[in-house]
Amino acid sequence: MKLGRSTYRFESNVAISDCFTVVGKKEGQGPLSIYFDMVIEDEYAGQKSWELAEGKLLNIAITKLVQRVGENPDNIDLILSGDLLNQLSSSHFAARDLDIPFVGLYGACSTFALSIGLASIFVDGGFAKNVIAATSSHFCSAEKQFRYPLELGCQRPPTSQWTVTGAAAFLIRQEDSLHSPKITHFTVGRILDFGIKDPNNMGAAMAPAAFDTIMRHFSDTKRSFEYYDMIITGDLGYVGRKLLEELFKKEGIKFSTELFDCGILMFDPKTQNTGAGASGCAASACVFGGYLYKLLRERTFERILIVPTGALMSASTVQLGESIPVIAHALAIEMM
Amino acid sequence: MKLGRSTYRFESNVAISDCFTVVGKKEGQGPLSIYFDMVIEDEYAGQKSWELAEGKLLNIAITKLVQRVGENPDNIDLILSGDLLNQLSSSHFAARDLDIPFVGLYGACSTFALSIGLASIFVDGGFAKNVIAATSSHFCSAEKQFRYPLELGCQRPPTSQWTVTGAAAFLIRQEDSLHSPKITHFTVGRILDFGIKDPNNMGAAMAPAAFDTIMRHFSDTKRSFEYYDMIITGDLGYVGRKLLEELFKKEGIKFSTELFDCGILMFDPKTQNTGAGASGCAASACVFGGYLYKLLRERTFERILIVPTGALMSASTVQLGESIPVIAHALAIEMM
Repeated sequence: MKLGRSTYRFESNVAISDCFTVVGKKEGQGPLSIYFDMVIEDEYAGQKSWELAEGKLLNIAITKLVQRVGENPDNIDLILSGDLLNQLSSSHFAARDLDIPFVGLYGACSTFALSIGLASIFVDGGFAKNVIAATSSHFCSAEKQFRYPLELGCQRPPTSQWTVTGAAAFLIRQEDSLHSPKITHFTVGRILDFGIKDPNNMGAAMAPAAFDTIMRHFSDTKRSFEYYDMIITGDLGYVGRKLLEELFKKEGIKFSTELFDCGILMFDPKTQNTGAGASGCAASACVFGGYLYKLLRERTFERILIVPTGALMSASTVQLGESIPVIAHALAIEMM
Repeated sequence: MKLGRSTYRFESNVAISDCFTVVGKKEGQGPLSIYFDMVIEDEYAGQKSWELAEGKLLNIAITKLVQRVGENPDNIDLILSGDLLNQLSSSHFAARDLDIPFVGLYGACSTFALSIGLASIFVDGGFAKNVIAATSSHFCSAEKQFRYPLELGCQRPPTSQWTVTGAAAFLIRQEDSLHSPKITHFTVGRILDFGIKDPNNMGAAMAPAAFDTIMRHFSDTKRSFEYYDMIITGDLGYVGRKLLEELFKKEGIKFSTELFDCGILMFDPKTQNTGAGASGCAASACVFGGYLYKLLRERTFERILIVPTGALMSASTVQLGESIPVIAHALAIEMM
């Protein structure tokens, strides 16, 4: 059912039954290293291009997930997937030999929440039993597309973020087990634009979108910071994270819950030279799927609000001098 | 509820309550001219780029639709929209001043069916009351992005299709009125790839996807050609339409219903020099919204199966020599 302007509440034990994460070499050397299901050291993943490599990672995440849960692929009703590449190339490469009905989504780095939120709509509404929500990103394919050829060796400004190479797939279905994290709320963001034009400062562009969606989630659900054990944004990074904190302070909103960010948790800033932190669809998807999902199952945390943000720029609109539209979607994931 | 492998049946009078179509000059000179709600002669639509112009058309379609139905924008629960541009630029430009929760979809020219199908899921599932499904395309922004700079004046091969400049928005909600066309079934396609690599022959790439989705729709619903007054594909054009007919003949499937194609209906091949026909998200969306929707309301036709197809190529994957993944989604739209 719908709550307020933007939030859907799910009451039928819509669960993240299982998930599978695969990451690249650099992510596999970071602080969350031990939590990922698979690390692939070759940035081409045995393929002949970065775009195909990204598709391969996503295909691995989906097929390994299906194998692990022991489900016949014919029983997977639907895949909801998206990525950063023009026309969702990696999602289409990943899905073209899967023979499973497919819905393509675009929400830039907010895609993790978008795909899980829509999967929950299908499951809670009784339309589907087993839905896979998936997403991917790849440092090389993203840099090539959005910024400069890697071969140029351009200097990266300190506000720039490091796109995560990785993919994650989640099986969403009704499950009564007390061990399965439940998706209880999905708050759909709106498109905002605060005039930021620098594709090397996405954190600044996205912070107000995270603020807007968190405030709407609170307003719709009558919850507040106190309700959650953790509120974690997708990939604001160090710059965006600081701005978000300032936005709350400016509005006089006190918070007891620490504000975390997946983009900050992914890499070690001292040794990994990753600028303002991680970004990319796989930032929130792999940090959640690899790390936070396990903390929920162990009940280290019981109530998480995850708010992946998306900077919806394209190389062409940056060249046209257009500002960057942004969005953030939120998922409340709870142990019941 | 779900039928078979890929089809969702809606039983709660999910209706296309109203729609608004806006097209460019060339479309306004075509055979369907009198059916569109608005023709904008300026290819820039008063904007400084084609990308912004496409966003403007989409914004007009959505805002005029909301005005015409007399609904307060605050009562629109959700916009589901997508387009052909990298990172859905025109959808984001259109939505950034609307203040309505937004979900971005990518299905290339199949987006019309994808957006209406997902909107129906939200409405039939009781999650939302008023949902807008929308899409757009623009000849100039598409040529620039997918093929060659228009300024080069490249010769177009005879198999090439002409991207429709236009946008359409549809209000999806429960409505008991006998005058409202109802969305009764949504068949979700799967990603296929038949090895076609020519971005100037999308009809050939997409025809097998249309075949696959129509056959799955028949198998899931136990319906056949006889059930429908009209089965109409999105933008196969003359080349793809012929291939689709051959695919049916090859399988020994006889059809009484004439197979139509929105890409063939949009332009006059004798006077408009549009190659193998129209394409683009707006091809099926504007032909349906402008023309077929009225024929349904007048009960000239009572049962239509519309099957928009998408060629999911990107300029980068074409340059990499990759083949074109394709998809088709189907909507059964009926007068009850």
